[in-house]
Amino acid sequence: AEKAARKAEKQAMADFAKERYGVSAMVQSQQKLDRVLVRVQDLSPEKADQLIWLRARIHTSRAKGKQCFLVLRQQQFNVQALVAVGDRASKQMVKFAANITKESIVDVEAVVRKVEQKIESCSQQDVELHIERIFVISQAEARLPLQLEDAVRPDGEGEEISFHTTTSQAIFRLQSGVCQLFRDTLTKKGFVEIQTPKIISAASEGGANVFTVSYFKTSAYLAQSPQLYKQMCICADFDKVFCVGPVFRAEDSNTHRHLTEFVGLDIEMTFNYHYHEVIESITDTMVQIFKGLRDNFQTEIQTVSKQFPSEPFKFLEPTLRLEYTEGVAMLREAGVEMGDEDDLRSGYLFAVLAVFQYDTDFYVLDKYPLAVRPFYTMPDPNNPKYSNSYDMFMRGEEILSGAQRVHDPELLTQRAVHHQIDLEKIKSYIDSFRFGAPPHGGGGIGLERVCMLYLGLHNVRQTSMFPRDPKRLTP
Amino acid sequence: AEKAARKAEKQAMADFAKERYGVSAMVQSQQKLDRVLVRVQDLSPEKADQLIWLRARIHTSRAKGKQCFLVLRQQQFNVQALVAVGDRASKQMVKFAANITKESIVDVEAVVRKVEQKIESCSQQDVELHIERIFVISQAEARLPLQLEDAVRPDGEGEEISFHTTTSQAIFRLQSGVCQLFRDTLTKKGFVEIQTPKIISAASEGGANVFTVSYFKTSAYLAQSPQLYKQMCICADFDKVFCVGPVFRAEDSNTHRHLTEFVGLDIEMTFNYHYHEVIESITDTMVQIFKGLRDNFQTEIQTVSKQFPSEPFKFLEPTLRLEYTEGVAMLREAGVEMGDEDDLRSGYLFAVLAVFQYDTDFYVLDKYPLAVRPFYTMPDPNNPKYSNSYDMFMRGEEILSGAQRVHDPELLTQRAVHHQIDLEKIKSYIDSFRFGAPPHGGGGIGLERVCMLYLGLHNVRQTSMFPRDPKRLTP
Repeated sequence: AEKAARKAEKQAMADFAKERYGVSAMVQSQQKLDRVLVRVQDLSPEKADQLIWLRARIHTSRAKGKQCFLVLRQQQFNVQALVAVGDRASKQMVKFAANITKESIVDVEAVVRKVEQKIESCSQQDVELHIERIFVISQAEARLPLQLEDAVRPDGEGEEISFHTTTSQAIFRLQSGVCQLFRDTLTKKGFVEIQTPKIISAASEGGANVFTVSYFKTSAYLAQSPQLYKQMCICADFDKVFCVGPVFRAEDSNTHRHLTEFVGLDIEMTFNYHYHEVIESITDTMVQIFKGLRDNFQTEIQTVSKQFPSEPFKFLEPTLRLEYTEGVAMLREAGVEMGDEDDLRSGYLFAVLAVFQYDTDFYVLDKYPLAVRPFYTMPDPNNPKYSNSYDMFMRGEEILSGAQRVHDPELLTQRAVHHQIDLEKIKSYIDSFRFGAPPHGGGGIGLERVCMLYLGLHNVRQTSMFPRDPKRLTP
Repeated sequence: AEKAARKAEKQAMADFAKERYGVSAMVQSQQKLDRVLVRVQDLSPEKADQLIWLRARIHTSRAKGKQCFLVLRQQQFNVQALVAVGDRASKQMVKFAANITKESIVDVEAVVRKVEQKIESCSQQDVELHIERIFVISQAEARLPLQLEDAVRPDGEGEEISFHTTTSQAIFRLQSGVCQLFRDTLTKKGFVEIQTPKIISAASEGGANVFTVSYFKTSAYLAQSPQLYKQMCICADFDKVFCVGPVFRAEDSNTHRHLTEFVGLDIEMTFNYHYHEVIESITDTMVQIFKGLRDNFQTEIQTVSKQFPSEPFKFLEPTLRLEYTEGVAMLREAGVEMGDEDDLRSGYLFAVLAVFQYDTDFYVLDKYPLAVRPFYTMPDPNNPKYSNSYDMFMRGEEILSGAQRVHDPELLTQRAVHHQIDLEKIKSYIDSFRFGAPPHGGGGIGLERVCMLYLGLHNVRQTSMFPRDPKRLTP
């Protein structure tokens, strides 16, 4: 052993590059280093021949004689790098580099070099890095939970995506964009953001499908929607409000489109004379989101479509609005037998017809039968079988449900009695309209569904970072 | 009775203005009316002599002979209006207007008139409205839950604010601004917004003070912080992330600063070499928020200070950063006896000293004793009794707690053992650092506290729309 140690020492002595590589001490904020780290996405021919520092992950590694080729990755960007025996790197240094485990994080000092032939496998195709120093900042264990290279191959339906892949990076950056576009558009329209409570004392939508919480010496529930609170804000003259937050549904549904916890993008607003003012505000907001994604998130859209190919999302301006009866008529014409009030919500055939006839992946279905909507939905003044309510669809799946709400306490009481709802339980809800309530309407959008359908994915678990369903609570 | 009816009919016949007032049919979207409604805040001398339509609430009403003076309100704005017997209004019409209950919502058609003497009691001081038509859109019940005029008088400490007042409007508009400034600043800095789950399978911070949820056939918990999820995103190369969402604490604390559910503004980011990079990002974000509020929310700040007077919020650029030991030394100098590691968190005296000596209401206390921080806090490399952690304070109260996190699984294990934490329970947390983890840090901000302290209020219930505490679950 002593002999071996002496031999190692002698070899190290002989290594002229021994200060140029190694495992760094854990970064514990020992010092403020005045060193600029370049971003991988900024590596371009303009930086040719510059000596730069960079921190990145080892994406792939391939040793070959006296050289070691690495691909260094930062989020969805990567670049080829080379350590080669020469006057800046010793044999030992190349061996060290070759032995760094994949996914480890390294600091490298390197010269940027233009390449003659494009490097097709990397996002930075015109340059490579010639490494002069390499230090391990964080070492990954040799056995990874999965091989990332394998995880981004084009895939079948409904498969989940590993959180570490470039596809996943792209999906959640786009999701962040949806939230930002939603809020920015509404803020410009004069909406105020509100924060509504998630722990509530009474089940908001009738009591079914609600999670129970132990609350000190009593019980409480998790809010199934911010409906009541949005409407209280309207009654308190907030005029136009929105909120973004978790929504909880204790439904034992194990489908591609159901989660027990999802992010709701909720809108409620007063209107002057007709609830179509609300529909127009919401559809315009959706159109601004679609445009913002198309114009500012092409990198992300392209990254996702490499693994999950789909047609670009189509929409019209102004948004197509069809009445429910028109939808029924279209289906009957296509040979489907259905009653006037049968549920069109999951009418895929109808969606196909709409895309086919109108060339849009986004449309509104207006004037639902009163019987299939909640008790607080305003009846149609011209036909008591219908209501002032609507759903919005993307690629044939419902993403928003909304309506004009009943703002008159007497009519609201009548409707609740008709639905056989215990008036005692909704007394405070009805009372909130007794002190002057403006006509208003709104709707709730599921964030994960919007992202899934915009990108043409097939499972809402692909657009939820940490999905929750009846069988899944971790991580 | 028949006689009375005939008399009423005769009177109505005699009323030349009978088409000019009344109770409108409930707005049920019967028609799309092509009528522009002017906003109260836009009523200025430039509109003098114009005939306009307006929808507003009756704020106050005072009949006086053949006239009735109304104050019409929209959110925090109001204007004086007059109905007087003349060629556009009959005696009956004035009587009708005078009998409309306060807080009812009305549509009025009126001529805008310049006034000679400023109307001090209204936000629109230079004009009044001469009403020619008035229709009730929504009638308030005569007995209101409280008198709104009374509810905005200057008030003592800790009192709650009625949700319908102009003060409340101002507070929650400012709160909406805090969220927007927080997100916009971070987005510009390259942060990505993430959505983290609120229902979790294991108690995140050790198991105390956690709410339990019935989850189908098993149990789950409500997240006490997004800590674990933020860090998982960092390990998955999201680089810089933030989230805004509810945080749940089952603490039986009935103080002015504790809620069982509050809105967390959370930040987590990688850094290169020193965690002060994180402190600088967060303090700069706070400074951008303070500046944005100062520059764009003066109306709201003034409205709140009418009821709750306070000094304008002071801050420095760059933000004052003191080390914990400096804080202890300051207190000792002022005659306070305390140990090196005693808790400074609620050190009001220290806050007073800081404001006095440095003229700032916002500062960072850096390098807390390691013993008082969570196990995942990075120890100070130079002094093992201290840590790379910090709190941020506004007007002497803590609003953020943060630190460099341990990103090395071996050190993390050691620290957990030292804290006598069951390793089995945090295995997946520790394992998430085994596949390469960059140095990182962050912190969590309480939205309600930031708003309370910025405005110089004294109870966090005043800046929560629907506060939740051990004794309060409604509305």
